[in-house]
Amino acid sequence: MQQADIGLIGLAVMGQNLALNIRDKGFFISVFNRSPDKTKQFIEQNQSIGGYFEIPLFVQSLKKPRKIIMMVKAGKAVDELIEQLLPYLEENDILIDGGNSFFLDTERRINYLNNKKILYVGTGISGGETGARFGPSMMPSGNVEAWTEIKEIFQKVAAQVDNSPCCEWIGDGGSGHYVKMVHNGIEYGDMQLISEAYFILRYGLGLQVSEIQHIFEKWNRGVLDSYLIEITAKILKATENGEPLIDKILDVAGQKGTGQWTSASALELGVPLTLITEAVFSRYVSTLYEDRQLLSEKFPKPTLSEKNLQIQAVHDALYAAKIISYTQGFMLLKQAAKTYGWSMPYAEIAGLWRGGCIIRSRFLGQIQQAFQKDTNLQNLVFDDFFGNALKKADQGWRETLIFAIQSGISTPALSAALAFYDGIRSAKSPANLLQAQRDFFGAHTFERIDQPRGQFFHYQWEEN
Amino acid sequence: MQQADIGLIGLAVMGQNLALNIRDKGFFISVFNRSPDKTKQFIEQNQSIGGYFEIPLFVQSLKKPRKIIMMVKAGKAVDELIEQLLPYLEENDILIDGGNSFFLDTERRINYLNNKKILYVGTGISGGETGARFGPSMMPSGNVEAWTEIKEIFQKVAAQVDNSPCCEWIGDGGSGHYVKMVHNGIEYGDMQLISEAYFILRYGLGLQVSEIQHIFEKWNRGVLDSYLIEITAKILKATENGEPLIDKILDVAGQKGTGQWTSASALELGVPLTLITEAVFSRYVSTLYEDRQLLSEKFPKPTLSEKNLQIQAVHDALYAAKIISYTQGFMLLKQAAKTYGWSMPYAEIAGLWRGGCIIRSRFLGQIQQAFQKDTNLQNLVFDDFFGNALKKADQGWRETLIFAIQSGISTPALSAALAFYDGIRSAKSPANLLQAQRDFFGAHTFERIDQPRGQFFHYQWEEN
Repeated sequence: MQQADIGLIGLAVMGQNLALNIRDKGFFISVFNRSPDKTKQFIEQNQSIGGYFEIPLFVQSLKKPRKIIMMVKAGKAVDELIEQLLPYLEENDILIDGGNSFFLDTERRINYLNNKKILYVGTGISGGETGARFGPSMMPSGNVEAWTEIKEIFQKVAAQVDNSPCCEWIGDGGSGHYVKMVHNGIEYGDMQLISEAYFILRYGLGLQVSEIQHIFEKWNRGVLDSYLIEITAKILKATENGEPLIDKILDVAGQKGTGQWTSASALELGVPLTLITEAVFSRYVSTLYEDRQLLSEKFPKPTLSEKNLQIQAVHDALYAAKIISYTQGFMLLKQAAKTYGWSMPYAEIAGLWRGGCIIRSRFLGQIQQAFQKDTNLQNLVFDDFFGNALKKADQGWRETLIFAIQSGISTPALSAALAFYDGIRSAKSPANLLQAQRDFFGAHTFERIDQPRGQFFHYQWEEN
Repeated sequence: MQQADIGLIGLAVMGQNLALNIRDKGFFISVFNRSPDKTKQFIEQNQSIGGYFEIPLFVQSLKKPRKIIMMVKAGKAVDELIEQLLPYLEENDILIDGGNSFFLDTERRINYLNNKKILYVGTGISGGETGARFGPSMMPSGNVEAWTEIKEIFQKVAAQVDNSPCCEWIGDGGSGHYVKMVHNGIEYGDMQLISEAYFILRYGLGLQVSEIQHIFEKWNRGVLDSYLIEITAKILKATENGEPLIDKILDVAGQKGTGQWTSASALELGVPLTLITEAVFSRYVSTLYEDRQLLSEKFPKPTLSEKNLQIQAVHDALYAAKIISYTQGFMLLKQAAKTYGWSMPYAEIAGLWRGGCIIRSRFLGQIQQAFQKDTNLQNLVFDDFFGNALKKADQGWRETLIFAIQSGISTPALSAALAFYDGIRSAKSPANLLQAQRDFFGAHTFERIDQPRGQFFHYQWEEN
């Protein structure tokens, strides 16, 4: 009997769809699931897939070195599965974790398995169920020796954009899962920005849903062209008894926590990831539903006269803020690489996000080009394409925020983006006062503009 | 020989000053330090303090049940010290950690020591060196049986405001260290808000440092009356060769990490602590000094015509944003109490912050009253005093932000506060679009406004 090219464990929807995708690309695949019923059902409904009910037989069915993708719930389940597999594995076999694992867990597992001569790969897989089935965006990292063995399968299974696979080797350790985490954070930011733009158009300018639907369709043909803008246009088209369905949906956001991980990492690494963090917090504010109803009656709308606002200004605000969000996201990747000793291919990361995943967009092609032009690019706003885009959008962005402030519309992400932009394009910051305060109450000392960096001074403030 | 009322270990500045403070309040105190030289020097320079060079003798010098305050570096050093002390302690002796420990470490130590019948207290101590010496703000928690034993000493040592000690029992477990952590986060927020207001006055309105100095002195006689406004006025008075010293201080902020802990906790607990988090991130932005110099040349100032701005509007913006910051801070305390099973006295917490600590202010007396009036107060903006203050400040706050946007001045904290305010006082949020997007790409489902909560719906978007 022919041995399988690869094995997959865990037949929840993501696992099933990834297995079918691998089969469809011409590979022989064996599958195993903790509950045998699911395996049975899966191989009954799908041809040319080897189903196994015992781990030893499953492992034996695989070509050496064995390649096993684990598609189980992040956390303890991954560690337990590794222990179950270990007795049957041999030197140079390859274990792959395709779940949403926390990157430090992946780092720990690599060290553990390398001591046992097993190669380990953690791979971010983005694109949800449809992505897994027809072509996800994939972010593998870990033991680079494994990459030559799995590259062909991974790059055929991944989404393709302009004949390039949306899968590249990310680097050492847990860098792949880290990049996937940042992807999810960026997804939170993109969604929040679109929602704020929608809200301004709807409740600030008072447009009809159908009018906004056309605006998003139009925007999707320009620089904002992206999956999330595209589905927003489709969402606004949905009606129920002639009424827009969007108006019936409760305005309380759920979340699964990966956006929160990204913000927590930024806090720890000292990176100002303000926009994504505001997006995470905005979901929390949305859950204060009852408070919002009560407070909307308690506090009147602002009394400032509302100005007119061009729709193009809202477009420019959304575009500029998106540039800032990705600027911050890539700053976080760079700092993580430095902190954890990874070497990350930024152009390739932008490139592989162009397809398969939720944040896919034309925009990511521009980011890819920016990092191709200058591999040491400090951050995106230094790139001419994005720098010029910001300059062009500057006025509309500010007009939009002023309009929102006058109208009493909350724009946490659009505002955080401008505050960051005005912060990094200001030669002076108010942190001199902050340092003086810290020196005043805690003798924390300060540096001086007229002395070399690294020299610290204390002043006897109280003697004034 | 008379036995001591209390012992203290760790003679760095905070420990020394706290020991002197305890002695001055009429208690007999024994001290111990890892390096005996420091103990020797300390007792040579200071009378009526018992110095010990061996742990067993130090412990023997204390009245039973012994009360020992550990003033050592947070982390491993605390655990090591506990192990060193344990062999000499008896049932019902009381160990007190007065360092800046992470609250979950305190929880762990309580459980560990209770198994050994030792009582444990973690206490936040705020006010820096001067506070420790002359009266800090103290936030003890842990084994409540210990409180009757230490209450007299703690409440005499603490700062006094209106004849009330700035020290109350906070509650179970690590709640005291948690409250101290949130205090530090609020401190970050207050400092950032003051710095933004200063920056607008200085570089937006173009005022002289001496003019701004007078403004802060004036503000310190009104609702903003607080230690941080007071020292800001003093800082702006300092000159060097006739020039304001503030202009010579490098505008790059340092930090010791407790602000970051507060934000990370808020992210984890689902609380929108936007202002403090922007304050933490702003310190990170300030460190991008070289980038800021380069980008200030690359990006021109905005071309929107600048309007005039009243100084009173800046005052109102600062005051309103401060109300929002404390609203968020107390929301975080409430959620932490719920999550960790603590029962926290919110009025008393506000009360004990009125003196001794860095955020001390008249304002905290109003918060104390708000929670006294309504112990179940959902959040501060529901209180009439703060609600009316926000309404009154509304227009000036918005005018200040519009002016900042027009002038290209970064106001991350003032802006985050308004976005939060406009978010919670809006009956509608844009999260319905967000939920539709999540249902579109991930079948995450949504709730409906015309159906009871807890019912989840999925829509076949693609069939549109």
